Amino acid sequence: MRKNFGAKPWVYPQPALMIGTYDENGKPNLMNAAWGGQYGPNTVMLCLSAHKTTDNIKTSGAFTVSFATAETVVPCDYVGIVSANQEPNKMVTAGFSTTKSEFVNAPIINELPLTLECKLLKFNEDGKVIGEIVNVSADESILTDGNVDYKKLDAIIFDPAAAAYIRLGEKVGNAFKDGAKLKS
Amino acid sequence: MRKNFGAKPWVYPQPALMIGTYDENGKPNLMNAAWGGQYGPNTVMLCLSAHKTTDNIKTSGAFTVSFATAETVVPCDYVGIVSANQEPNKMVTAGFSTTKSEFVNAPIINELPLTLECKLLKFNEDGKVIGEIVNVSADESILTDGNVDYKKLDAIIFDPAAAAYIRLGEKVGNAFKDGAKLKS
Repeated sequence: MRKNFGAKPWVYPQPALMIGTYDENGKPNLMNAAWGGQYGPNTVMLCLSAHKTTDNIKTSGAFTVSFATAETVVPCDYVGIVSANQEPNKMVTAGFSTTKSEFVNAPIINELPLTLECKLLKFNEDGKVIGEIVNVSADESILTDGNVDYKKLDAIIFDPAAAAYIRLGEKVGNAFKDGAKLKS
Repeated sequence: MRKNFGAKPWVYPQPALMIGTYDENGKPNLMNAAWGGQYGPNTVMLCLSAHKTTDNIKTSGAFTVSFATAETVVPCDYVGIVSANQEPNKMVTAGFSTTKSEFVNAPIINELPLTLECKLLKFNEDGKVIGEIVNVSADESILTDGNVDYKKLDAIIFDPAAAAYIRLGEKVGNAFKDGAKLKS
């Protein structure tokens, strides 16, 4: 038996995207968004609606996408709840610091170890932000043999049904590619 | 120090979306996609390119989005690797069975307990599938007190850097909303 919930925004799970931008004076801002995803081989889509971040992306033509981690869940949640329009220093209050990306006009958040550095391509016909991933950078602290190690990254996801953050657990393998067999 | 990886499709993590459709003869098909996400309050976006599923969505005007689980990782991976154009019975081979959605012209996969039942709105200007979520249904086996329980669902995510599936782990809370304090 299935229970019907009606129309709910329950793509499951959702990433905890941390969007970094500069305003027109070069001041960094950071917000938290769960609605977005990989849009193509080198593009991302963000559903942001009206935010300081949206204005900043229009002005600067660029943004970064980092990923909330278990270690940073409190400040990551904080910058998602509080608007820079009300609390201009929310990033510093939250304990984040920034370094300018080498590739785009947007800040890398030093405390968030995996970052997509993106150039704005457009706001599409539905008003979504479409960005080109110009570079991905990862702090060396999350690498094993030169590759991103999800256990070291310790990213969290957003559970839309429970409105909770959850960390990743055990690998269940590449399954079929690893030689697993279908039940006969 | 950060390492630069160049342009990589590393939105992290990515959902393991299972797309259910009917072909022009009402035969169900299922594929696996990681590129997509919540597009708006009641809409989803899928980046599918050319697939049997894409043809089916055009014909039927509907699709379902379920989520791969740890228990079903092998058959879910299988239907993502094998095309219905080459292997017309891949769903049955994989061990999946279907029930028609009450709400849209698309199949619910009985073995996948959480499903978004979607009506095609359009292929947007970039060729992405945009669907309206008409209903979300969940098997009672994954509910606790009437709500979706992520531990019972046991959904997996796709790690794009490692090309591996990972299950969810521990809840790290609602953080700030739960009363956590920023470090002073």
